[in-house]
Amino acid sequence: MKTTAVIMAGGRGERFWPTSREKCPKQFHSLTADGKTLLQLTKERIVDIVQTEDIFVVTNKKYADLVREQLPDVPVENILAEPVDRNTAPCVGFAASVIEKKYGDAVMIALPADHLIKSSTLFCDSLKDAIDTAETRDALVTIGIMPVYPETGYGYIHFSKNGGNIYKVLKFIEKPDFDKAKEYFDSGEYLWNSGMFVWKASVILNEMQKLMPSLIEGLEKIKYCYQTEAFDNILEAVYPSFKPQSIDYGVMEKITSLNRVYTIPGSFGWNDVGSWLALERVRPIDKNNNALQGNVVNIDCRDVLVRGSEKRLIALVGLEGIVVVDTDDALLVCNKENTQDVKKVVEFLKTYDKKEYL
Amino acid sequence: MKTTAVIMAGGRGERFWPTSREKCPKQFHSLTADGKTLLQLTKERIVDIVQTEDIFVVTNKKYADLVREQLPDVPVENILAEPVDRNTAPCVGFAASVIEKKYGDAVMIALPADHLIKSSTLFCDSLKDAIDTAETRDALVTIGIMPVYPETGYGYIHFSKNGGNIYKVLKFIEKPDFDKAKEYFDSGEYLWNSGMFVWKASVILNEMQKLMPSLIEGLEKIKYCYQTEAFDNILEAVYPSFKPQSIDYGVMEKITSLNRVYTIPGSFGWNDVGSWLALERVRPIDKNNNALQGNVVNIDCRDVLVRGSEKRLIALVGLEGIVVVDTDDALLVCNKENTQDVKKVVEFLKTYDKKEYL
Repeated sequence: MKTTAVIMAGGRGERFWPTSREKCPKQFHSLTADGKTLLQLTKERIVDIVQTEDIFVVTNKKYADLVREQLPDVPVENILAEPVDRNTAPCVGFAASVIEKKYGDAVMIALPADHLIKSSTLFCDSLKDAIDTAETRDALVTIGIMPVYPETGYGYIHFSKNGGNIYKVLKFIEKPDFDKAKEYFDSGEYLWNSGMFVWKASVILNEMQKLMPSLIEGLEKIKYCYQTEAFDNILEAVYPSFKPQSIDYGVMEKITSLNRVYTIPGSFGWNDVGSWLALERVRPIDKNNNALQGNVVNIDCRDVLVRGSEKRLIALVGLEGIVVVDTDDALLVCNKENTQDVKKVVEFLKTYDKKEYL
Repeated sequence: MKTTAVIMAGGRGERFWPTSREKCPKQFHSLTADGKTLLQLTKERIVDIVQTEDIFVVTNKKYADLVREQLPDVPVENILAEPVDRNTAPCVGFAASVIEKKYGDAVMIALPADHLIKSSTLFCDSLKDAIDTAETRDALVTIGIMPVYPETGYGYIHFSKNGGNIYKVLKFIEKPDFDKAKEYFDSGEYLWNSGMFVWKASVILNEMQKLMPSLIEGLEKIKYCYQTEAFDNILEAVYPSFKPQSIDYGVMEKITSLNRVYTIPGSFGWNDVGSWLALERVRPIDKNNNALQGNVVNIDCRDVLVRGSEKRLIALVGLEGIVVVDTDDALLVCNKENTQDVKKVVEFLKTYDKKEYL
């Protein structure tokens, strides 16, 4: 059976303001030293197991041109442009419907466009196991990550310790509070839910039929019109009516029988690039734990993270635990403990109608 | 007797980088909300007691044009352009010599160009007392400031408690260590040496003759040529030979008989604008002790000082005790405890030949 990949590239990356902007969100920027954008890295990572013509990208229609520019060898008809954001459940359903229409059925690997992964080889090995399981057992496979600290920002997967490298999922758990997260972390029986999934298009659509029937109803219309002249109009008419829902909350956490739901613990070095702090793990660090990029003068700083350009000089004196992100028209200076609150800056800009900085 | 003023405007203001630059140092910038530069404020403050035509400005020749632009009503021949910086003793001697040449003799008020003063009225009242004392008693009068904390960055003046508002100076003391500063502060018998002086030109030149005879020898040549065609050449030839020395160290601290040396404790609200922290005392402060200037978004910050423009957006998240100064080509982010170390940035730029940012 054919293996396809669906890269989910519609996010806004608000926690990466001021680099990530409405016109060009995080996944279209490079955060690593190689100069490749997160989207490009996501695509390159899988080219050994998925043919380029079988790679799909779902994104907001605003970003379709950016996707075309950054992934010129992905067929234009594989760039699925959402008229509005409706979170990951409609996004996955949209792609699965198109894949069914195009190939009858196929295994699909659903991948967020904004993750960083250290070892592509180990990553692809995990995916191969997942593809095999998805194909031979009609399974829903999710890539899990062994927690390295009690994060409260991820969902967790309770798995059964049955040996082998593919595990049965006992339960999907929503983002926990800290005490719960610590319990999960300490037990060794829980994985982080990475948001990467492998399944046949038919299998996920079947689950959606049970759990989100009105979504499937709309997707049927879209599927019917794919690659016809009516497609854009139908998409514009139907897509906005979808209820915004994540694939985790809308489907995975609600599946009544987990018989065919599996997880593969990935050990490929995963970084979901959730806030500016993620850069500490991917940029070179000096002996005082500073990660400095750009034209920087550092006087007695520790634990400082800077993303600047070669143009403007950034001088830092006596700082500790600070993030500085400098762009042409906007500057962010943030305490490392508050990097999640960068979203609040974006909210402020929306509220006070400073659109030019969004 | 005529009263003249000498504004000393040759400083480099390195601790105010990146606003203060080699091409346009601190005294030529506005740090207050009124938009007037420190130099302009220094001049405006004294116009009630000194006629504009009797105001002199000593500056580096690089800044003579800036002085002309900012003080267009000060006569051009009163702008005394030093070929090189030689600290305040040659600067005061140069001005005193020119004043002697122009007026025979006159009282001269020597004022740094980069101080801020809250009450011009009280300031001028202090100066009037100083002028009277300088004129009638051939006195050397220094304006003292009652310490508000044990600062180690200023010289101190030990004064005698003899009543009245003019006090005899018992001793000038170099910048002390912290223990000494605390002792002086606690005793109530010491004032900060503000670097503002009042004396007759003839009186200070006479003291210099005793303590810095080679300086006087050079100044005689300069004085002889003032307002002749030879002036610029003589200045270029003689001035570089002067030993760099402050008026405090070179003269005040060495005067053998303090009979005619007085101090007036100023109570006019003095701020020597010694580092970026000085702005906290002159800019509006919000309820979380933030002094924010420019296009700033503040999310949960305390004790933050920002100087930005209306152009670039500056977003601050979760910061405490940080100074941010944003200019077109350079940015400073500094811990408030390290504002003196801004000089180290300037040293770095010199060492690594990044002249464009100096």
